[in-house]
Amino acid sequence: MTDNCSHEKPIEDYIRAIPDFPKPGILFRDITTLLKEPRGMRMVVDQIVHAWAGKQIDKVAGIEARGFILGGAIAHQLSAGFVAIRKSGKLPSATISEAYQLEYGSEVLEIHTDAVVAHEKILVVDDLLATGGTVGASMRLLERLGAIIVGCSFIVNLPDLGGQKKLAAEGIEMHSLCEFSGA
Amino acid sequence: MTDNCSHEKPIEDYIRAIPDFPKPGILFRDITTLLKEPRGMRMVVDQIVHAWAGKQIDKVAGIEARGFILGGAIAHQLSAGFVAIRKSGKLPSATISEAYQLEYGSEVLEIHTDAVVAHEKILVVDDLLATGGTVGASMRLLERLGAIIVGCSFIVNLPDLGGQKKLAAEGIEMHSLCEFSGA
Repeated sequence: MTDNCSHEKPIEDYIRAIPDFPKPGILFRDITTLLKEPRGMRMVVDQIVHAWAGKQIDKVAGIEARGFILGGAIAHQLSAGFVAIRKSGKLPSATISEAYQLEYGSEVLEIHTDAVVAHEKILVVDDLLATGGTVGASMRLLERLGAIIVGCSFIVNLPDLGGQKKLAAEGIEMHSLCEFSGA
Repeated sequence: MTDNCSHEKPIEDYIRAIPDFPKPGILFRDITTLLKEPRGMRMVVDQIVHAWAGKQIDKVAGIEARGFILGGAIAHQLSAGFVAIRKSGKLPSATISEAYQLEYGSEVLEIHTDAVVAHEKILVVDDLLATGGTVGASMRLLERLGAIIVGCSFIVNLPDLGGQKKLAAEGIEMHSLCEFSGA
């Protein structure tokens, strides 16, 4: 087998676009077609881990539900802990919560109060950055518990929806594997 | 640092028991206290991967939501694809669905019709085996698409709730990392 990495199709070509999901007018970027491919899954996790090489990361926070797929893999690869940021009512022990606006609708996220301890260094991961509402609420939860945000990784960035600008304004280091404009 | 693996605390000691969640009378086994620990997260994924060493696994199917954390990590470690089995209405493209009874209530699970192709070999992972309803519905979805189930892995087995017996009766190879009786 010759090394054909240079002929590998780019990540964005694995991602399926689905019009009007979950609401009319939304062009949904579906990463299931990326992650079901062995090379897609491997590439995504390896590239995210690569981006943070040399940084101290104590725990990886995954945002429900697609962020769990990436977050679990990255935490294992780094020998870090995994922290779940979940939708309201899903976590069984004591939690704190944050409400936020989504690209479509509003939502509440929760974290266990014992998920992190003060000064732990956290990488936050999710599949997609749009308006930044979800990741913003997730970071607020972590910061309220005293954690330090190392940065955020996403597979997809939709720069026109403002999330990237918002993170930059807050001084948060952001990394993504591909972007779609005009979204 | 000396090797203290033999003194490592067992997986079950990392798991928190929460009475009356999500319903009165249910003793919930909370794995967040296991996965947030770097050693816990690493140990769980490595032990599951170890259990299936030498088997051909094309894709790992993770069951929403906690199965995503494990499934992503195992798929990446095996350089396999990851397939999401999700609750009703979450998957954006064409799906098939299966209804089933839970330990508490009933539920519908879905899979994308293009998630697997015929004869692909699939490892199914979830955090916990209770009555076997969830994993049973997941396997039916995969089998309807022509996939071959290599087996199922769980962190926790609750043998008194019958799931393990049900899987054995169907000839499914089952692996778990710890069990709690009298649950």
